[in-house]
Amino acid sequence: MNRKQALKIYNDQIEKIRAYTLVLSTTSFDRLTIAPVKGNSYRNRMLSIVEGEAYSLQTDKEFIEAVKYLKTQDLGEVMNREIFLANKTLDDLIRFSKEEIMEFSFAQMQGNDAWYKAKMKKDYAIFEPYLLRIIELSKKRLKKRDQSKKPYDLLLDDFEEGMTMNKYDEFFGLIKKELLPLIKKIDRKKDCIDDSFLYKYYPAEKQALFSKEIMKYLHFDPSWGYLGLTEHPFTNALSRNDVRVTTNYDEHDISAAIFSLIHECGHGFYEHQTDKGFDKYLYLNNMSSGMHESQSRFFENYLGKRESFFKLLYPKLQKIFPENLKDVTLEQFIRAVNASKCSLIRTEADELTYPIHILIRYEIEKDIFAGKIDLSQLDKIWNEKYRKYLGVEVKNDSEGILQDIHWSDASFGYFPTYALGSAIGAQIINKMEKDLDLDSLLSKGKFSTVTAYLKDNIQKYAALYTFDEILRRYTGEGFNPHYYIDYLKNKYSRLYGVEK
Amino acid sequence: MNRKQALKIYNDQIEKIRAYTLVLSTTSFDRLTIAPVKGNSYRNRMLSIVEGEAYSLQTDKEFIEAVKYLKTQDLGEVMNREIFLANKTLDDLIRFSKEEIMEFSFAQMQGNDAWYKAKMKKDYAIFEPYLLRIIELSKKRLKKRDQSKKPYDLLLDDFEEGMTMNKYDEFFGLIKKELLPLIKKIDRKKDCIDDSFLYKYYPAEKQALFSKEIMKYLHFDPSWGYLGLTEHPFTNALSRNDVRVTTNYDEHDISAAIFSLIHECGHGFYEHQTDKGFDKYLYLNNMSSGMHESQSRFFENYLGKRESFFKLLYPKLQKIFPENLKDVTLEQFIRAVNASKCSLIRTEADELTYPIHILIRYEIEKDIFAGKIDLSQLDKIWNEKYRKYLGVEVKNDSEGILQDIHWSDASFGYFPTYALGSAIGAQIINKMEKDLDLDSLLSKGKFSTVTAYLKDNIQKYAALYTFDEILRRYTGEGFNPHYYIDYLKNKYSRLYGVEK
Repeated sequence: MNRKQALKIYNDQIEKIRAYTLVLSTTSFDRLTIAPVKGNSYRNRMLSIVEGEAYSLQTDKEFIEAVKYLKTQDLGEVMNREIFLANKTLDDLIRFSKEEIMEFSFAQMQGNDAWYKAKMKKDYAIFEPYLLRIIELSKKRLKKRDQSKKPYDLLLDDFEEGMTMNKYDEFFGLIKKELLPLIKKIDRKKDCIDDSFLYKYYPAEKQALFSKEIMKYLHFDPSWGYLGLTEHPFTNALSRNDVRVTTNYDEHDISAAIFSLIHECGHGFYEHQTDKGFDKYLYLNNMSSGMHESQSRFFENYLGKRESFFKLLYPKLQKIFPENLKDVTLEQFIRAVNASKCSLIRTEADELTYPIHILIRYEIEKDIFAGKIDLSQLDKIWNEKYRKYLGVEVKNDSEGILQDIHWSDASFGYFPTYALGSAIGAQIINKMEKDLDLDSLLSKGKFSTVTAYLKDNIQKYAALYTFDEILRRYTGEGFNPHYYIDYLKNKYSRLYGVEK
Repeated sequence: MNRKQALKIYNDQIEKIRAYTLVLSTTSFDRLTIAPVKGNSYRNRMLSIVEGEAYSLQTDKEFIEAVKYLKTQDLGEVMNREIFLANKTLDDLIRFSKEEIMEFSFAQMQGNDAWYKAKMKKDYAIFEPYLLRIIELSKKRLKKRDQSKKPYDLLLDDFEEGMTMNKYDEFFGLIKKELLPLIKKIDRKKDCIDDSFLYKYYPAEKQALFSKEIMKYLHFDPSWGYLGLTEHPFTNALSRNDVRVTTNYDEHDISAAIFSLIHECGHGFYEHQTDKGFDKYLYLNNMSSGMHESQSRFFENYLGKRESFFKLLYPKLQKIFPENLKDVTLEQFIRAVNASKCSLIRTEADELTYPIHILIRYEIEKDIFAGKIDLSQLDKIWNEKYRKYLGVEVKNDSEGILQDIHWSDASFGYFPTYALGSAIGAQIINKMEKDLDLDSLLSKGKFSTVTAYLKDNIQKYAALYTFDEILRRYTGEGFNPHYYIDYLKNKYSRLYGVEK
């Protein structure tokens, strides 16, 4: 095999794999959004067959040989990275049989379906056997992977290259030490911000009108982006110019859908704004979850929760809901959406308590994969941790262990990237405020200057660099969680008039 | 190869092909409904790659051998028919290369996209080059197929097994001879039915509310059926329990969406009500287009345009649009939706003039594939035929040659099945009224008795028999177009008080 042959084999095969990825992701988006439920079992079975075929393409002998050969070559920075990532992925993939891949994919879809049913019925018992099966299969997979690494470390690295329990322990240790005391202090003063108007009645159809305004403000364009509806909002990019985000309307909480949509649009822009030269690659387009969450959490909090962001939008919101908001000023609205309180639902948590929701999931996942937990007690352990860290009582499973979709399809190791992404965001805002007159841009509706800036400094790289390298190139410094701690302490001590 | 081996090869392979069909149809449904337009070119390319892979599965050497072997065996009525249909399809398919399949599929998608753009801009010039390319590719394909048959006969048979130009010429000859004089007579009296209230302003959101009422009345259930929005309404069944129909709201014509939705639900029920034992087969689920259109046109006209059908529904429609309908009685409404006039748009045409719209397309298609037509004049030929047969002037392309999506993806030979299906419907209604107290059932909202009857007598058979055989088993008589002619002559001569 020479370089030219190897490159041809590689390029031809990844084009095919990309084609399978497209139809599989489309069908998956469809099943999570609109597909009729009685078709689930047939659809899941058919999908797992095509997943199996996609696996065969990825583990094709000649293709693997080409990757191994290209790994020995210097192909320039971009292609070197593509091949590095290909090799890393395939090294794991070839440890499984096609049947195992199909079995796992089928269990993931069954898990999704059972989770949805359980959440609707607020009954963990419906979901429990599927979750236990997903955990069992995940553990079985881990036994086939690199045994020199700890099982959960492998999962953490799947979602964020280079991250380990050691690193996350240090990170979450800092969060516990620095933020828990402040959270407790603020929780005693929680009544000093009035946010009751956020929880009045906001009909979904009218919320949908405001969603359109948000998307217009962000320049999230229907020619390349689509908004759907799901129980658990998510983003799925089928290609750079086909980005799907979903939302969900809580008729008794106007902030939930607003910030969830801004969050998902952050993901969406990241996918849309990668270098178009990367279209012909495969693995370079699999950005790390931490960096992905840094963009979404950045949109949601560091941008979305500023007064300047709502300067133009808030009057539109008032106009849609005069009965609830005509007497609420912009300043009051912003204070309310930033109010901190110990609560049950992660996606609706304020910035300060948010990382504690992640800490809880991280601790549970760590214990699951270290075998230190009684799996029959997962819901009770969940509730106990919420009591211990946030002092709140889970009253029904749907606001407890059933609140997130992630475990239903075995996304273990994903949650920590939400906190990591939030922390990266603090480093970005620190730099961005030096480079841009941010509040002026936001209050004038020049959001495209902000997205262009994020594209040039972060998003265009896709997976070309690790999150740490991107930060270093952009800010001159690798990841440093102290920006996050300082940001939260400053913001919330000021907001509540307490000591840091 | 023995029978057991051949059956195993066959069953394993069709399960894979079904899996590919599912992801391809889902992605195709997605692209026709919600997919962002800037993703089209990438998506189309990727789709054609997977189409190519699906082709490879269908033309796999061992699979073809298994089919040929099984063709020699007596496997019972059901499996014999499955293998007969498999063999018929594959005999054609193997004449093409994978590259030709991919090229054609890509051109079909490009044709769709260009048609949509042209229709939005009411400009045939945008679509023309794509249409000419689709015609050219279709002719090229025909040259590779059975040369003992006439090219257009091959296309007609693709959509309706056994149909030929000879048979359709006779059928359309009857329509011209028997119906054109009546159409002219009635056109002179067209002002005697007031249908002006149908064309007031009906906002799309409120029409959508009535769509839900229609689906409830029909028992078209969201657990197995989904309603989407497209420029050109269609039905796509991803499986027996995953049936998608689409609709489109004309804000200045309330009847368009109502009858289009009832039409598509007719298709939908046919897909949903096939024998569940057929789930494991492939080709048995490809019902003929004529029989399919017989069900949709039956719902739309033979059922949907009766007074009893609207007994319960019309008060709901009045309640949604009191400003337009409060002074219109049910009887007036039914007269209006049955009013006959020579018009431009096929999907909105009344029952009497409808087959003339089909006749026009049939004549043009026949001439295209006989090479008797100047392809650069297609739009002008279209307009000329509308002038000649219906006496109406096409004022812009979107109500002329651009009105239908079918030619954009090379569905040549499909149109005639609409008229055939309409004619089959007359034979069904004749028998059904003997078997059921139809008006009583409809006026009491017992629509599920009607669908159960259609299931037992027609729909459950799927492609087990030809349309002619199904009619013979059900009514005791093969296809006979005189029921159709009599039905139309009786109905319209009575409605307008003219001689037949």
